[in-house]
Amino acid sequence: MDKGMRIAINTGGGDAPGLNAVIKAVVMGADSRNWEVYGIKNGYAGLLNTDEMFRLTPAMVHDICSLGGTILGTTNKGNPFKMPITNLAGETEIRDVSDKVMDNFKRLRFDCLIAVGGDGSLEIAYDFFKKGMPVIGVPKTIDNDIRATVITFGFDTAVNIATEAIDRLHSTAKSHDRVMVVEVMGRNAGWIALHSGVSGSANVILIPEIPFDIDKICDHVSELELQGHHYAIVVVAEGAVPLGGRVIDKGNGEVGRQHVVLGGVGEYVAKEIARKTGKDTRSLVLGHLQRGGSPTTFDRLMGLRFGAAAVRMAEEKKFGTMVALNPPVVTAIPLSDVIGNIKRVPTDIDTIKTAREIGISFGD
Amino acid sequence: MDKGMRIAINTGGGDAPGLNAVIKAVVMGADSRNWEVYGIKNGYAGLLNTDEMFRLTPAMVHDICSLGGTILGTTNKGNPFKMPITNLAGETEIRDVSDKVMDNFKRLRFDCLIAVGGDGSLEIAYDFFKKGMPVIGVPKTIDNDIRATVITFGFDTAVNIATEAIDRLHSTAKSHDRVMVVEVMGRNAGWIALHSGVSGSANVILIPEIPFDIDKICDHVSELELQGHHYAIVVVAEGAVPLGGRVIDKGNGEVGRQHVVLGGVGEYVAKEIARKTGKDTRSLVLGHLQRGGSPTTFDRLMGLRFGAAAVRMAEEKKFGTMVALNPPVVTAIPLSDVIGNIKRVPTDIDTIKTAREIGISFGD
Amino acid sequence: MDKGMRIAINTGGGDAPGLNAVIKAVVMGADSRNWEVYGIKNGYAGLLNTDEMFRLTPAMVHDICSLGGTILGTTNKGNPFKMPITNLAGETEIRDVSDKVMDNFKRLRFDCLIAVGGDGSLEIAYDFFKKGMPVIGVPKTIDNDIRATVITFGFDTAVNIATEAIDRLHSTAKSHDRVMVVEVMGRNAGWIALHSGVSGSANVILIPEIPFDIDKICDHVSELELQGHHYAIVVVAEGAVPLGGRVIDKGNGEVGRQHVVLGGVGEYVAKEIARKTGKDTRSLVLGHLQRGGSPTTFDRLMGLRFGAAAVRMAEEKKFGTMVALNPPVVTAIPLSDVIGNIKRVPTDIDTIKTAREIGISFGD
Amino acid sequence: MDKGMRIAINTGGGDAPGLNAVIKAVVMGADSRNWEVYGIKNGYAGLLNTDEMFRLTPAMVHDICSLGGTILGTTNKGNPFKMPITNLAGETEIRDVSDKVMDNFKRLRFDCLIAVGGDGSLEIAYDFFKKGMPVIGVPKTIDNDIRATVITFGFDTAVNIATEAIDRLHSTAKSHDRVMVVEVMGRNAGWIALHSGVSGSANVILIPEIPFDIDKICDHVSELELQGHHYAIVVVAEGAVPLGGRVIDKGNGEVGRQHVVLGGVGEYVAKEIARKTGKDTRSLVLGHLQRGGSPTTFDRLMGLRFGAAAVRMAEEKKFGTMVALNPPVVTAIPLSDVIGNIKRVPTDIDTIKTAREIGISFGD
Repeated sequence: MDKGMRIAINTGGGDAPGLNAVIKAVVMGADSRNWEVYGIKNGYAGLLNTDEMFRLTPAMVHDICSLGGTILGTTNKGNPFKMPITNLAGETEIRDVSDKVMDNFKRLRFDCLIAVGGDGSLEIAYDFFKKGMPVIGVPKTIDNDIRATVITFGFDTAVNIATEAIDRLHSTAKSHDRVMVVEVMGRNAGWIALHSGVSGSANVILIPEIPFDIDKICDHVSELELQGHHYAIVVVAEGAVPLGGRVIDKGNGEVGRQHVVLGGVGEYVAKEIARKTGKDTRSLVLGHLQRGGSPTTFDRLMGLRFGAAAVRMAEEKKFGTMVALNPPVVTAIPLSDVIGNIKRVPTDIDTIKTAREIGISFGD
Repeated sequence: MDKGMRIAINTGGGDAPGLNAVIKAVVMGADSRNWEVYGIKNGYAGLLNTDEMFRLTPAMVHDICSLGGTILGTTNKGNPFKMPITNLAGETEIRDVSDKVMDNFKRLRFDCLIAVGGDGSLEIAYDFFKKGMPVIGVPKTIDNDIRATVITFGFDTAVNIATEAIDRLHSTAKSHDRVMVVEVMGRNAGWIALHSGVSGSANVILIPEIPFDIDKICDHVSELELQGHHYAIVVVAEGAVPLGGRVIDKGNGEVGRQHVVLGGVGEYVAKEIARKTGKDTRSLVLGHLQRGGSPTTFDRLMGLRFGAAAVRMAEEKKFGTMVALNPPVVTAIPLSDVIGNIKRVPTDIDTIKTAREIGISFGD
Repeated sequence: MDKGMRIAINTGGGDAPGLNAVIKAVVMGADSRNWEVYGIKNGYAGLLNTDEMFRLTPAMVHDICSLGGTILGTTNKGNPFKMPITNLAGETEIRDVSDKVMDNFKRLRFDCLIAVGGDGSLEIAYDFFKKGMPVIGVPKTIDNDIRATVITFGFDTAVNIATEAIDRLHSTAKSHDRVMVVEVMGRNAGWIALHSGVSGSANVILIPEIPFDIDKICDHVSELELQGHHYAIVVVAEGAVPLGGRVIDKGNGEVGRQHVVLGGVGEYVAKEIARKTGKDTRSLVLGHLQRGGSPTTFDRLMGLRFGAAAVRMAEEKKFGTMVALNPPVVTAIPLSDVIGNIKRVPTDIDTIKTAREIGISFGD
Repeated sequence: MDKGMRIAINTGGGDAPGLNAVIKAVVMGADSRNWEVYGIKNGYAGLLNTDEMFRLTPAMVHDICSLGGTILGTTNKGNPFKMPITNLAGETEIRDVSDKVMDNFKRLRFDCLIAVGGDGSLEIAYDFFKKGMPVIGVPKTIDNDIRATVITFGFDTAVNIATEAIDRLHSTAKSHDRVMVVEVMGRNAGWIALHSGVSGSANVILIPEIPFDIDKICDHVSELELQGHHYAIVVVAEGAVPLGGRVIDKGNGEVGRQHVVLGGVGEYVAKEIARKTGKDTRSLVLGHLQRGGSPTTFDRLMGLRFGAAAVRMAEEKKFGTMVALNPPVVTAIPLSDVIGNIKRVPTDIDTIKTAREIGISFGD
């Protein structure tokens, strides 16, 4: 009888709800073919220090689908091609340790690496593929900004958590006649802000794709007041920018533009609204709450389907590809087509059009 | 200045999470065009007795997106073409009162009826269209069984509620080494059972599209036991059928087949598993819990997009059509193409394939 | 140095949210004293067949507080004083195997058994105490019907789940002008029905402590209709009884009274309301949904406090007692005072008075 | 027939889940006595400008129990004894307008004001009582820091929301081997941090009542690491203070002590842990999320019982008192005993003892 495959799997980048569903489907799909699956911990760490690698069995994954995070651990700093190494003298230098990873991979006779991750992790996977590793990618992004797939897991949960938070803020905003500004994830693309803002009955939504004019926002808030609507909800993507440039804090109490800053745009918008409209205004950053917790049904299903598809692709030896949803089917697309290709919100899509028609301002 | 349109809107059939989002988008979309919208209560009742009709204003709909149900009320028995009328003597007869509805519609100078409903309601809307009423349909189905649209609102919420219930049953099933049988909605199509079962880590899923063999189910439960997995979750669509016919309760304690019964299949399956495997087994019917409560983000967005699109179609005078999702756009399709066309689960789709690969039995 | 204690812990009866919190606190509290804790699986099974016993370490319990069920498993049929034993011929007889449990307990040099359970389990614990076992009890009841403690864990979660379900039913009941009857747990005491019904804005609440008159219920539903309130929510404890006796299904289509039946009272009430008022009426049994899922904060805290207190009592050698909440402190009370002493709802308590004042009918 | 009472009701201070339950019970309780209830909007604003006052009917309050916020609106700046008044020249001065409130109260022939609020609002209510107004107070505090009642509504919901957030952070913290610092409400008292931290399996809890030593916290985090527990959850009350004084940001990049600052302690703790342990550390402020959303069953019941009790006290003419829970009964206590009497966490209570025994550090 033909010997089955020996699969390695890792998860990289920020954690996303649905990662455990991918792991479950890979383990179960492999098990149904009598293959073996090994978990590589913390990105590629488990292929550098093979102590951090372990056999994954069906019993270990049966119940993990409903759990947030990833049972394999993850990391944002584990690129083996540019690994920060600290020597005994305490000095840190950047080294390429990818050969060590390749050696371990071969020595342990793995037949395939299933690499689950975002843009950065998929790029690393592609680099290993070019070095000869049989790789299959699985896309992961809370932000919904990977172009090559219509959608992936993580986003639906993040949006539902954000919407639930916005729902909660309505009652307190209304009770106090307040403006509440909520900053949600989305450094490059405004998908989370758009979807949670529209479904959470926000009055203003600010996304990176539509630079905002703070005066237009204030006009909208005042207009609402005239209509007898004394409170307002403003949803801001963390990458939202004012017309003319990004907001920076000059450190001397003034706020400048044009330079990039991370974070803070929600607080900036809140302060400006308070200053210009005189309304009682509060801001809030949802942050890591959007990552955590039990995945929605959609994200579990998406994760399971992607994991099962990855195993099928391994069976068909379609290496160097990534699974992608092209409804209603899951297909394989070359990793080379995926890298560095961000999916931003087209400003003319139906959801934006709908948002404007139901009275939401984008500050433009 | 051109006079704007006067829109009537009603909701029919079982309530579904997302109905209020449709209403909101219709009212706001109309308001942005300076049109008027009137709510027709309880299906067509408000067009028979015009006391039950009222002007819908933006202030009335601002916050309704997060609410379950429908602020217009709904009904399952309000077909004006076959209306049950009870006279003073207490006798009920079926009458066609559609002319009265047409008269009121014209007398009140409505320019369009936006009819939100499932298969039955859309068929009534189509009948009125054939009588000359300018109608636009909006599809609604918790069961995801309307063929003409890829998806509509209501389903995502129902599936998430069912999944959450299944999650809860895991802990009690595991603590007691029990088999838990959960009956979910789906008289003709198994979408809810399939999606909630897969994402809820069910061990067995029974859907109308795949007749089940009770012995295969019991074998699977026993097989799990041998693997050290002493409990099991079985998700059953209410329309699931055993090989050879539907289950009926003959009333004398025996269970027969071949005739249609509504409900009860979950309890039947539970009893058979208990009898044949000797396992402690419990059953549960989720029922109306699946309809209620705050819609998910997906269902709110879908409802809003459909409502906004319906107004655009009214503007373009595309009467006799229904809004439908054909990703990424919302289009208009003729109502004549919609009627009586159920979307069942294709037994070879990716989700079924994935389910089998991760070890789920369909009892076949 | 003095040798530490060796603790055994088991959980018995129906599972309740908060059991894992008790286990965590026992393990951590013992660990902080350098003691050892062993988990006994499935009630007393682990003391009969010592294969089913295992050392519990801090790492195993760190994250279990948020999980429903019990990691030790539980059982409703494991009384070692009356154990059903099946011989090779397939015959089952009841045997007293308590000596075997005692022998194993002594042989393994346990210093204390912490027995977590409801009325039945605590009675068994007390019987072992009388045989010489150093026992400490921890009360567990979803139904809130153990008299000796003001409250215990499990109840708050069950009530919140029931209330959330009732909240969901409001929107569908209102949309359809329906009467929804929800049957909740509570065979002997109506605490869950009372608390979830009052906070879920039920119109009628039926509890075992107040026999109901079906005509009074129907009058109340009709009265609501006259006030323009066309739907109603009726919450029924599974042990609710009509005036004159419990409901039984005579099997010939008629419903009788006076004999005990389990379950079914919700459906009976629904049918009678439909028959007598002509309203569209549906019924639903929450069942095991009330047991499952993540415990509320209250139940986790209660479980942790009880577990920690049990360890303190073991330290003080207060055997033969049960931990009990006597706000604000946790005390030890003799197990002999606990047994067979049900806490029913006093019909004159503040919550009943409040319920009546806000317009809720108890059908009396 | 004797004329019934005419009741006014207002809500003041920050909104809390359960306020609408109080309003419902007051309206229904009054209605059952054939009394009238009028809602005063935004604290006392509705008694200054009587346009903002309206009759509250049973139909208006039937469904409000499950809603967060308050249908009456609230305010933090509406003390009629010290009202900021802005004249046409734009100058603001503080004026005593309490006589105007008294006049309107008498002119409209109110028999009682039910004032629902926190410490500040109850003090205003007491001042009006001293001026001759028949007042009954209802205590409201999310922070659980009103001494005169064992507990009140709002707290249980806030704690459950915080715990749910902490649960979510576990998965992301664990996946990334991170320290997550969560700042929760509690300026003067650490109840929310204590209860949510213990039930959310936090590793460190910092409360105002126990000044913390940052080095002890870092030692604890490092100790966990040695035990193989690579992540940590730190829950910080916003009023937590380091040994030797409160934290202040000196503005020049340094952090000083001894002066009071609002907010920021969570971020300070996160930065120090990152600096001293080298761990990847993130912080998060829950803020207004803790106020919003549907109240738990406990808070609804508490609100309903307090509202119904307030009406009973009005009937008995017990003016100048506040309703208070003295389990199992609700009693009336003099407002004079309530004012300025904060309930802090006793550092020797059972919950603190339990927390320490299960391995939680308070940084002391």
